[in-house]
Amino acid sequence: MLKRISISELKNHFNEEIELQAFVDNIRNIKWVQFVILRDDTGKVQMTIEKSIEENKDLVEIVDNLTSESTVKIRGKVIENPNVKLNGMEIIPKSIVVTSKNNNDELPFNYRDLSTVNLETRLDYRFIDLRNERNAFIFKVQSTLIKYMREYLYNNNFTEIHTPKLIGAASESGSEVFEVKYFDTKAYLAQSPQFYKQMAMASGLNRIFEIAPCFRAENSNTNRHATEFTSFDVEVSYINSFQDVMDLEAEMLAYGLEHLKAELGDKIKELYDIDIVVPTLPFPTMPLKDIYKELEERYNYKVDDSEKTDLTTEAERLVGKLAHDKFNHEFMFVTDYPAEKRAFYHMRDEQGILQGYDLIWCGVEITSGAQREHRYDKICEVAKEKGLGKDVEFYLEFFKYGCPPHGGFAIGVDRLTMLLLNIPSVKETQFLFRGPNRLNP
Amino acid sequence: MLKRISISELKNHFNEEIELQAFVDNIRNIKWVQFVILRDDTGKVQMTIEKSIEENKDLVEIVDNLTSESTVKIRGKVIENPNVKLNGMEIIPKSIVVTSKNNNDELPFNYRDLSTVNLETRLDYRFIDLRNERNAFIFKVQSTLIKYMREYLYNNNFTEIHTPKLIGAASESGSEVFEVKYFDTKAYLAQSPQFYKQMAMASGLNRIFEIAPCFRAENSNTNRHATEFTSFDVEVSYINSFQDVMDLEAEMLAYGLEHLKAELGDKIKELYDIDIVVPTLPFPTMPLKDIYKELEERYNYKVDDSEKTDLTTEAERLVGKLAHDKFNHEFMFVTDYPAEKRAFYHMRDEQGILQGYDLIWCGVEITSGAQREHRYDKICEVAKEKGLGKDVEFYLEFFKYGCPPHGGFAIGVDRLTMLLLNIPSVKETQFLFRGPNRLNP
Repeated sequence: MLKRISISELKNHFNEEIELQAFVDNIRNIKWVQFVILRDDTGKVQMTIEKSIEENKDLVEIVDNLTSESTVKIRGKVIENPNVKLNGMEIIPKSIVVTSKNNNDELPFNYRDLSTVNLETRLDYRFIDLRNERNAFIFKVQSTLIKYMREYLYNNNFTEIHTPKLIGAASESGSEVFEVKYFDTKAYLAQSPQFYKQMAMASGLNRIFEIAPCFRAENSNTNRHATEFTSFDVEVSYINSFQDVMDLEAEMLAYGLEHLKAELGDKIKELYDIDIVVPTLPFPTMPLKDIYKELEERYNYKVDDSEKTDLTTEAERLVGKLAHDKFNHEFMFVTDYPAEKRAFYHMRDEQGILQGYDLIWCGVEITSGAQREHRYDKICEVAKEKGLGKDVEFYLEFFKYGCPPHGGFAIGVDRLTMLLLNIPSVKETQFLFRGPNRLNP
Repeated sequence: MLKRISISELKNHFNEEIELQAFVDNIRNIKWVQFVILRDDTGKVQMTIEKSIEENKDLVEIVDNLTSESTVKIRGKVIENPNVKLNGMEIIPKSIVVTSKNNNDELPFNYRDLSTVNLETRLDYRFIDLRNERNAFIFKVQSTLIKYMREYLYNNNFTEIHTPKLIGAASESGSEVFEVKYFDTKAYLAQSPQFYKQMAMASGLNRIFEIAPCFRAENSNTNRHATEFTSFDVEVSYINSFQDVMDLEAEMLAYGLEHLKAELGDKIKELYDIDIVVPTLPFPTMPLKDIYKELEERYNYKVDDSEKTDLTTEAERLVGKLAHDKFNHEFMFVTDYPAEKRAFYHMRDEQGILQGYDLIWCGVEITSGAQREHRYDKICEVAKEKGLGKDVEFYLEFFKYGCPPHGGFAIGVDRLTMLLLNIPSVKETQFLFRGPNRLNP
């Protein structure tokens, strides 16, 4: 690979001549000396140019004209120097080439202190906003967590698939679906890969996952919603019940968090003051009914019976507290929802109880999972009951020729990241947020 | 994880009572005995039921009513039996539960022999088509190759990002872009993450990759094109030239193919009669001009000078032959294209030579890569020259405040898979193909 040295590796090259490329983080040009702080994604280092040295004449001139946030390629010697506060080292350059110039004295805002900067302005200039170390680090954390969740799945013989996002029918309902002009006809953008994950099961692929964009034409502005988001989707065959799906998800999350902590825990602590908690297995599980009972007993939280068919936002938050108080855990599976308000493809028992669950992390729902209805007669019956027509016909076909019992779940990657780092909104955990009023940059 | 035993693992459980779930592959119901072949994604096994045994009465009745392609859950003992041709073992069941029933005597087609089945019919019933072992295996191979290409990038400190597919401007040209109804306005589907990969570089993210869908509203029907496809995109900062990008891509591909061969080489040989060749490094490289000279000298291939600004399809094919004959290699980098026909964001030198390359594998282009123009003045100049207007303004902003030299490449995952397994069309290497006339299932 590119034999480039990063700033974090400089300590292994004392007294060697090295080549380094970096951003100019800051320039201090004083009477006898120029200090240029260089920055890359691994750290910062000081470059020092003594003005009195004759050979430095050209370098001094370059630095006189240098602006911060420009980029440079330098050659020089890196030496240990305990007097330099920044990492106890400095670079004495022999050559400096300006590889790109920031022509602007001022950036659109000071990305080092975002406390007074409006979030919308930050999103308008996301490429500046991400120069903030904490903000850029979000994506290192996200990438690393996903890496290990994927690794868990690979280790358990899962296959990654890529299902189409352009679909011919508006799937479940037709509302909240984006319409696409498709040559002489219309297409729609997939809200989830649900139908295709299940198609894979009917094909016998057995264990699959997909990490891909999903699209929701929802005209709402909350901190948790976006019109486009990254979904981590898993589907698995030959399960005995939705308990198998819960076990799978819990193990995957525990594996991901354990390895994330080992790799980036210290840095997460430093930048976000968060101690990653590796969850114990199994995760606590409670039926919805018991949850409401216990929320009332413990926290005097009362809601009308009519609301008890789902978790209210406040109940969700309190489930986070309950998980902590009762089980000393950050996660809680909630089960035994009435099935009628759930998607038709979820399996229900004869009492109409959903054979699935929601997973609450730190008081916020991060995922829904379930066993799916795989029996052709049953799924046709429910689709009919729900008044679903031509749009799901192709889907029902998948179950006509035999299909193993199966289930799965989906995790919103942006929301997961938001909770992990205690960031207030998915607007900051998406690389580029998309909402009803935001399509740019 | 799910403590399920797969068929490939049965050999470790001789004389134990096991639970197994599988498809019914085939049933032979003869006078004294029933043979049921069970199938999962790891293999096949025979289940044997002696009719004369009194306790088998219920089982015999179940199998009498069983149809192939149904799914079952069985309990029973697995025993070694050298007389059984299939793997030298059989299962003697104690219980059989039919978990889903194939109600149809006949499938839409015989997926075991696809030689006479029309491709469009196969795609209509893709969930049946993928029950064919060779077809399903395509996705195991694809997933495994991508796993290792990703692993190479992780090992080299790359971060995975997820850029939006809904974009506010029709980007480069406006042609071949799908339009989306977006609340009261219009959005477009991203043809590539190019602009956003580069935004990551301007942000200082340094090394990123993305594996995600791309959309092209191209009304053409070839074996290599689709309206939606999976793109493996990489971008890297602080390069010295596009040579660094070529080295990176070659190393990544070699790493991926080496590990793919180790993991699945035997099975690929068995099902596809292909020996995966792990390419040596560096890959051979030739300038476009020399290519045409040598194609003429070696193979008497002549084209008009006017065509020599790019590789013709036939020249591409012959480059595969040239790579083999001259370098004993499957890959060849072709460089020194005239830049004017390339996208404006590619860097060019003062002679107008593209600072980039195409990579040919087995006579087909699989990727384009380049150093990008990162200097604000230059990129504005080229954009203006090309007559690009408001649509690229947001992109040009990325370079205004300093941006490191950078480059990258993109590989079409479906096309890569097609070449790897010598499959005639991407229609078969996409999980679900999308073309001008195909949006279903």
